[in-house]
Amino acid sequence: MADSLIDLRSDTVTRPTPGMREAMATAEVGDDVYGEDPTVIALEAEVAALFGHEAALFAPSGSMANQIALQLVVPPANELLCDADAHVVTYEIGAAAAYGGISSRTWPAVGADIDPDLIAAMIRPDGYFAVPTRAIAVEQTHNRGGGGVIPLATLRELRRVADDAQVALHCDGARIWHAHVADGVPLIEYGRLFDTMSVCLSKGLGAPVGSLVVGSAEKIERARLIRKRMGGGMRQVGILAAAGRYALAHHVERLAEDHAKAARLAEAIAPFGVLATTARTNIVPLDLSKSPLDAHALAAAAREAGLLISVLGPRTARLVTHMDVDDAGIDRAIEVLTQVLRA
Amino acid sequence: MADSLIDLRSDTVTRPTPGMREAMATAEVGDDVYGEDPTVIALEAEVAALFGHEAALFAPSGSMANQIALQLVVPPANELLCDADAHVVTYEIGAAAAYGGISSRTWPAVGADIDPDLIAAMIRPDGYFAVPTRAIAVEQTHNRGGGGVIPLATLRELRRVADDAQVALHCDGARIWHAHVADGVPLIEYGRLFDTMSVCLSKGLGAPVGSLVVGSAEKIERARLIRKRMGGGMRQVGILAAAGRYALAHHVERLAEDHAKAARLAEAIAPFGVLATTARTNIVPLDLSKSPLDAHALAAAAREAGLLISVLGPRTARLVTHMDVDDAGIDRAIEVLTQVLRA
Amino acid sequence: MADSLIDLRSDTVTRPTPGMREAMATAEVGDDVYGEDPTVIALEAEVAALFGHEAALFAPSGSMANQIALQLVVPPANELLCDADAHVVTYEIGAAAAYGGISSRTWPAVGADIDPDLIAAMIRPDGYFAVPTRAIAVEQTHNRGGGGVIPLATLRELRRVADDAQVALHCDGARIWHAHVADGVPLIEYGRLFDTMSVCLSKGLGAPVGSLVVGSAEKIERARLIRKRMGGGMRQVGILAAAGRYALAHHVERLAEDHAKAARLAEAIAPFGVLATTARTNIVPLDLSKSPLDAHALAAAAREAGLLISVLGPRTARLVTHMDVDDAGIDRAIEVLTQVLRA
Amino acid sequence: MADSLIDLRSDTVTRPTPGMREAMATAEVGDDVYGEDPTVIALEAEVAALFGHEAALFAPSGSMANQIALQLVVPPANELLCDADAHVVTYEIGAAAAYGGISSRTWPAVGADIDPDLIAAMIRPDGYFAVPTRAIAVEQTHNRGGGGVIPLATLRELRRVADDAQVALHCDGARIWHAHVADGVPLIEYGRLFDTMSVCLSKGLGAPVGSLVVGSAEKIERARLIRKRMGGGMRQVGILAAAGRYALAHHVERLAEDHAKAARLAEAIAPFGVLATTARTNIVPLDLSKSPLDAHALAAAAREAGLLISVLGPRTARLVTHMDVDDAGIDRAIEVLTQVLRA
Repeated sequence: MADSLIDLRSDTVTRPTPGMREAMATAEVGDDVYGEDPTVIALEAEVAALFGHEAALFAPSGSMANQIALQLVVPPANELLCDADAHVVTYEIGAAAAYGGISSRTWPAVGADIDPDLIAAMIRPDGYFAVPTRAIAVEQTHNRGGGGVIPLATLRELRRVADDAQVALHCDGARIWHAHVADGVPLIEYGRLFDTMSVCLSKGLGAPVGSLVVGSAEKIERARLIRKRMGGGMRQVGILAAAGRYALAHHVERLAEDHAKAARLAEAIAPFGVLATTARTNIVPLDLSKSPLDAHALAAAAREAGLLISVLGPRTARLVTHMDVDDAGIDRAIEVLTQVLRA
Repeated sequence: MADSLIDLRSDTVTRPTPGMREAMATAEVGDDVYGEDPTVIALEAEVAALFGHEAALFAPSGSMANQIALQLVVPPANELLCDADAHVVTYEIGAAAAYGGISSRTWPAVGADIDPDLIAAMIRPDGYFAVPTRAIAVEQTHNRGGGGVIPLATLRELRRVADDAQVALHCDGARIWHAHVADGVPLIEYGRLFDTMSVCLSKGLGAPVGSLVVGSAEKIERARLIRKRMGGGMRQVGILAAAGRYALAHHVERLAEDHAKAARLAEAIAPFGVLATTARTNIVPLDLSKSPLDAHALAAAAREAGLLISVLGPRTARLVTHMDVDDAGIDRAIEVLTQVLRA
Repeated sequence: MADSLIDLRSDTVTRPTPGMREAMATAEVGDDVYGEDPTVIALEAEVAALFGHEAALFAPSGSMANQIALQLVVPPANELLCDADAHVVTYEIGAAAAYGGISSRTWPAVGADIDPDLIAAMIRPDGYFAVPTRAIAVEQTHNRGGGGVIPLATLRELRRVADDAQVALHCDGARIWHAHVADGVPLIEYGRLFDTMSVCLSKGLGAPVGSLVVGSAEKIERARLIRKRMGGGMRQVGILAAAGRYALAHHVERLAEDHAKAARLAEAIAPFGVLATTARTNIVPLDLSKSPLDAHALAAAAREAGLLISVLGPRTARLVTHMDVDDAGIDRAIEVLTQVLRA
Repeated sequence: MADSLIDLRSDTVTRPTPGMREAMATAEVGDDVYGEDPTVIALEAEVAALFGHEAALFAPSGSMANQIALQLVVPPANELLCDADAHVVTYEIGAAAAYGGISSRTWPAVGADIDPDLIAAMIRPDGYFAVPTRAIAVEQTHNRGGGGVIPLATLRELRRVADDAQVALHCDGARIWHAHVADGVPLIEYGRLFDTMSVCLSKGLGAPVGSLVVGSAEKIERARLIRKRMGGGMRQVGILAAAGRYALAHHVERLAEDHAKAARLAEAIAPFGVLATTARTNIVPLDLSKSPLDAHALAAAAREAGLLISVLGPRTARLVTHMDVDDAGIDRAIEVLTQVLRA
């Protein structure tokens, strides 16, 4: 990307800061396939502790972290329930079925507005006739759901549903940091609600690469083998883990700034009637169903004027704020969008 | 089952009639793995012709016929859309994901009352990011949907949706014969709407074993290999095909009697407020959510009194009429249910 | 096939005898998916008892019976050892890997002449680095190994190897009846050596369709679910089971006649230098590497003269004797082969 | 690992040099999932060019690079041939079968001493009956084969075998750099013999993380999707690619030193009769079958004395030289081994 462009496609595009680069350059490393990389070991312990779990495992991507977790809690030919817009059945290229043999049924796409009763009614028991449900997955915050935050009370209800049915609860927490900052819920409160979690360092937190699976010691031991099978066993990966540790130390609380930038963006374009929902976190979801411009046309016009946005569907698009776009960038983005939407 | 019991659990319990047994006993047979069983060849040609397709393939079960068809139209790691109560993601033990690597998303369980627009909105295009949708599956009549019949007009709309998106349309037609009889739609009208179909000889039609996959010659040639991989290649299976041919010749139009029996049953128990929907075909679906009896209690009490019914969930149950229960049997079933529900 | 042809392609081509047809026509049946078919239940009990195992399960083909057994003893991503010519990695269309996720390594194709020490050396232990071996499969008699019989003493040694390494031993016993008749080893002696077996009713025994998986009660209970997932759950399948019971009662000891016919055939063509090995059972394996005719040419010439044989490779072919070819048929086959090979 | 230990377990344990750290610290990066990381793009182009292929793709591990390549050339339920000690069926945790659905048969473990005729005889053609062979995989150099180098002439013969049978040829080239240095064969000469290759930056070359898949543009485009499905899509991974570029520029030719160190080690312990084969590259394979010490005992005694070695089996072990063990380290290793083996 030319640096003159304002890039609001995703928070994955952030580049490491000088401090983070310094942390990587001086990281102590070892062979992590042998379990000997001290920086990875430290990062895994830190993340496990943040969520009050026994253990964590570094993975090269959020997709792998999710898929490892799903393989941990759903045996082949058993069932996962999630929403129809969940990252795990949308953007992970069919891995749950193709590699995990996991059967899925979905509730309608409602982003963060999940209904524990409706989910409870979908669960199927163990037995000889129907595919038994083994896990429910939720996404916090919800990517295609416009960065929405599932309220803690809803998650607690869902935990009860899962307990009653004896199924596992997985959290795709790629952006759980944003939920924590937006709702003020301690990470450890979230942690205690889930059997497995994936959390990501390379989205809002700004590390170049890396996610973690979080769970019990027993699960993470099995996860290590699954990670190797998926091809995620890396050697002196402390280089990347150092960036993750730096991000955890310096980039969590600052997400509030990204949320403020998103709110400002949303407010500015609200008059055009293209906001899909309120921007709760760092995502501004656009619904262009009543706009003369479709998503590709909007993205093309914006790009022409120096702004990159993501197209999600024929009439849906997304703006994502992050640490590499400052207030001046947001000003510029507002100018571009105002101009394009007015035309 | 003791023969004194009235068995309304399923239409799969029917036993071959004397005529059917005679057909089996005198069937000409050959080695079907070598493609040399004349009775199987004749049955496959007959069924293909009934639906106006080029070819058909005999399979040992409806589940295998469905799974072969799904593997034909959805490559591993690609997506199938179906409803959350569909047989293919409920009763086929996870085969689509575990053996076909097929990713599935589901629309809410509404039985036969499908909404083509809602399905259209779920379809995802081919591309690098999201899992592409390759097929939509519907069930005609709908088993867990109380034997409901999808109207021909709705299916035609859905065909347009599929054409627009260039995805395949599969029909789980285990009981399509009942739809044909209930709505008077010629089988060939149904046939032209689908890329692949499965149809079953051993449910309402009363054959002991057997289903067929229906499709183009190219698809059925590939299906033959998939069937072998699934373990469905059988030898002198003309014995069973003979029963199927007999069933097609003698047991299709008589399904109207089963529908009448179901209607009579439904009418008799309607006053108890336990009918889930109108009985359109041979299934009487019970919703016991407002009844003092749950499904297991009802089934146990009925069994005590000589009537077998199927439990589908904690408060849902099912009665299925078929050729092995005559009018006197239905009278007796009504007596038992009236007595149990009144208590 | 025109009935005037002598068909030595396989023992799968046999058609049911009048007695067997009578048994099918009068079989008592029920819904076997509900576990209620009395003839199936009787057949399963009989076969389990023959091999001294707790339980058995009817399946529509030998391939499905093998694949169910392999899925029972080898979890996905774990390892099966077998020979490079084994039916399970040759003729079952990749099912072990594609559906079972089973990794396989093979020892060189030596038919029945297996070397337990070589197999022992291939076994890999459980652990974090290498794929752990979970099962060893042997084939008795060995199809591509020319109907060879693994000596009982060798099998006992292999059992010790399996016990030492704590891996399972599976027998693809599609033609174990022939081994029993050839070597005089009681079936129960074979049975006690294996954790799982598949045995076939529709090859030498002459039933139209059917194989069984044999194993412990716990395994067969799990097998029932796997069979359903594979699409092998059938309804009034007692029709076929009746043929199987008839075959067990009438067609086992008569295999000696088929062996004698094979020996006579082999002796007659031995002078042409095309016998791959001695014919121990009902298979006469041809090695045409020193013959002017390749396998396709030989098969074509034989067919022209009214004899069908199987081509296995560019220069390998196979003759199989069975109950539908009598002594006159063998005389005629010898005539044809003599004439073709002499030319 | 305490730094005072001499670590000859594997060449994966090397830590980045100051120059390599500098290259990482200053790497220009972008979002590689969007195809925008300039350092990754440069590395992929460099590696493709080295082998004369159109394209290459960065992957987080050698296992993932191999598995992506295998999924490219062998569809599910089709067959791969490789040796019984190949990394792809030994150390990749069953991924080929479990995730790729790939059926495998193996030739006996002979390391680099492969016999193209024997491999040719194992190939099975496309068709309805047997599993068709789609690819042959070789390993250059051969890890469990003691770092042996397959001669160029043998590979050329194998290429002819593959061409004749129209199957793909894959090279697991994790240590192909060592073959290049040992035999003086230009990398591009190797490159032209294979349809797909995997090459590794984090073994002998000393980069912390990273392998590449090499192939045609069409294959690498498909590979990108498979990598995402495997969870190998990473973001600002130019950090790691920079280390890889540095390694290619500075650490290839120096492998000759590692080979010399291995030769010196091998010579020193040869008198004890524990060398499995000559050390051709950087691996010294030990065969302890005639030694009083088994592999675990040897490793434990060596560790006690400050030397780490790898146990491969009950009586096989391995020493691997690399850039983090200098001549003094080798002297010390010789001392320890001499002392332990003499005892």
